[in-house]
Amino acid sequence: MTESPFRVALLGCGVVGSQVARLLIEQADDLRERVGRPLELVGIAERDAGFTRPGIDPALVTTDADGLIARSDIVVELIGGIEPARSMIMTAFEAGASVVTANKALLAQDGPAIYEAAEAPGGDIYFEAAVAGAIPIVRPLRESLVGDEITAVTGIVNGTTNYILDRMTAEGASFADVLAQAQQLGYAEANPTADVEGYDAANKAAILASLAFHTRVTLPDVTREGITGVTAEHIRAAAAMNCVVKLLARCRVSEDGSVAVSVHPTMVPKAHPLAAIGGVLNAILIESRYAGQLMFMGPGAGGVPTASAVVGDVVTAARNRTRGTVGPGESAYIERAITPAGAERSRFYLSMNVDDQPGVLSEIAAAFARHGVSLQAVRQTQDEESSLARLSVMTHVAAAADVEATLAEFDTMPQVVGEVDFMRVEGV
Amino acid sequence: MTESPFRVALLGCGVVGSQVARLLIEQADDLRERVGRPLELVGIAERDAGFTRPGIDPALVTTDADGLIARSDIVVELIGGIEPARSMIMTAFEAGASVVTANKALLAQDGPAIYEAAEAPGGDIYFEAAVAGAIPIVRPLRESLVGDEITAVTGIVNGTTNYILDRMTAEGASFADVLAQAQQLGYAEANPTADVEGYDAANKAAILASLAFHTRVTLPDVTREGITGVTAEHIRAAAAMNCVVKLLARCRVSEDGSVAVSVHPTMVPKAHPLAAIGGVLNAILIESRYAGQLMFMGPGAGGVPTASAVVGDVVTAARNRTRGTVGPGESAYIERAITPAGAERSRFYLSMNVDDQPGVLSEIAAAFARHGVSLQAVRQTQDEESSLARLSVMTHVAAAADVEATLAEFDTMPQVVGEVDFMRVEGV
Repeated sequence: MTESPFRVALLGCGVVGSQVARLLIEQADDLRERVGRPLELVGIAERDAGFTRPGIDPALVTTDADGLIARSDIVVELIGGIEPARSMIMTAFEAGASVVTANKALLAQDGPAIYEAAEAPGGDIYFEAAVAGAIPIVRPLRESLVGDEITAVTGIVNGTTNYILDRMTAEGASFADVLAQAQQLGYAEANPTADVEGYDAANKAAILASLAFHTRVTLPDVTREGITGVTAEHIRAAAAMNCVVKLLARCRVSEDGSVAVSVHPTMVPKAHPLAAIGGVLNAILIESRYAGQLMFMGPGAGGVPTASAVVGDVVTAARNRTRGTVGPGESAYIERAITPAGAERSRFYLSMNVDDQPGVLSEIAAAFARHGVSLQAVRQTQDEESSLARLSVMTHVAAAADVEATLAEFDTMPQVVGEVDFMRVEGV
Repeated sequence: MTESPFRVALLGCGVVGSQVARLLIEQADDLRERVGRPLELVGIAERDAGFTRPGIDPALVTTDADGLIARSDIVVELIGGIEPARSMIMTAFEAGASVVTANKALLAQDGPAIYEAAEAPGGDIYFEAAVAGAIPIVRPLRESLVGDEITAVTGIVNGTTNYILDRMTAEGASFADVLAQAQQLGYAEANPTADVEGYDAANKAAILASLAFHTRVTLPDVTREGITGVTAEHIRAAAAMNCVVKLLARCRVSEDGSVAVSVHPTMVPKAHPLAAIGGVLNAILIESRYAGQLMFMGPGAGGVPTASAVVGDVVTAARNRTRGTVGPGESAYIERAITPAGAERSRFYLSMNVDDQPGVLSEIAAAFARHGVSLQAVRQTQDEESSLARLSVMTHVAAAADVEATLAEFDTMPQVVGEVDFMRVEGV
């Protein structure tokens, strides 16, 4: 066993980076066995020259990221966001280094450019930690299932929103109240937009869809809706139908071969494997033509689990360098169109107050029919104290645009009083 | 893209092999894209020269396995069992071929010799289908989690026994009745020994433990107990404690660093992630120092799902050949001892009829104490029609040998009437 070490650079030393540094040091003996050569952390790039963190040797810290990259074999990018992360990764590939990143936003925006740059001599890219934290999902999609045909990937890929929806369900509380609690407990950021508006989940959905369907999917291709509009009433209505509300990332091959990728709060039947995924856990359900349904579950975030995934990638990249090979690279050999947002198909739940007059139900039903939306179930209840009835319907699978057109028509109907509640409903 | 194909040999064309042949043909275009070169099925070795099967070109069938191996790049062994599978795999390595196998019995018995032979020039071995069918578990253990430290692997890895225990639970029926049903439905073999006596699960446990703990574990190292002794009374007692009975494969690092690998029917609390795994599904729970708990779930058997895993391995092996590299190989760099069967630790449930006399409970409790087994819960109920009391206890975590010594002492105590029921109980 040669003792010449692989030089590892860490770009960014936050929640995940500091744990990666710790693992590289604590597990050094084991990692040397696994790689065949030592992994040496040669430097940590941080913006602030005075950066300190318990357990981190200050002598490792530098503000000269480019200089650090130039003297490294493997560059671990944990800065996040687009710039300067993007430029640093490009510099690393130009220098012939392998790159490990957890940067979902960058991969979802500029994945194709990054994968192309990784084709440079000596270049190699791994990003297990970018999707669903420590859950090994990238390797199974890129490698294990490569002999199969994946038809759908459905995931709970954002722990913060799953925690919030869970608490709303358990306590009957409002989104705002639970968000405030989650922020106090550290489960939600002070600025929660990326999580609660679904951007984080949409980035992961784009990456998952790219891997699963061997095509290029980027963030603008993802139809996105966060959980800020989810009300206690939605949660109650879901429970009445034996469902729970989850923020689902859905990737599907549509009938015409195009790819539909979306993030929406969705009513999930309790018998569905994703319904039981609680708290900050993540889970991903893969449906494939031959292997059938596979589910992967685990911690989707957190410094230590994410660091485990990063270090696994560092070991793999180092082994590749030992053998003079590289990982599987981008596998976007099928140019699939993106299903237009309105053509995406789902079941829908709708609920509205209507005037309790003869003929109203028939007029409502006719509006659905005019837009080609057929109904699976209808329930009408009486409000004792007013002249209004509450009408709740579940549609059969319908195109989102048709349901939206129906909603627009309800807006113009005087028989429909107030807002119409609606939400997607997942099949079992 | 060069069009020179990789020549694939199929040894054995049963339930899985015939589906592998179908996938290689049906998915040929996609597979060529994924590999960069075509995969050509050049022959199928079967013992019977007159072998036919719908969808299989009889011109491909040969009884000359060695001749077929000699003209192949990738040999897929799906014969099962030790010989002739073992010799054929060795011949393949000598010929510089890559091997893909689903042969759990062979890997659990002769894994080290097979891995060593795979080190031959051009040799490469993949065996995703040998454990838990289509569930990608080998790659995550061999690669994704390689930066972590796995502390435990617990699995439901035999669908037949899981189906039988499920039906016993749902119907309150006896093992024998449900086995007969399962055989009629094709969920159990006419000779069910390998499944119901736990040999199949033990083979998989040995492979999982080897991968997880980077050491050599073979079948004789696995403590094994099947489900033939599970009674309707066990199932009822489990339900009374809010548990279900599952056949668990358990791989653990003991406190002294040795490895304990066992297969036992076990009471699993309903809140445990494995409790909900029903029917013929398989699931594997990994506990690791950094990534925490990860669970993988999916179809554990069946020709088509297993074929998906096999073809995924064929693609990976072919890609490796394109690049002149090989897979991660054996990773048994830690020589760990095997925990002696009696030193394996678990909670236990015990239940027995005792003479309903003053002082009996104290004598029973003293017997436990003499063997260092401490009790977590005790319940005594009265049999109205006899002078017997039913005493059920749950122990704290104890060594199996200490519980067995206690049982041996009960055998000699006249106050204990009849057989003592006992079963392991998993923690949550």
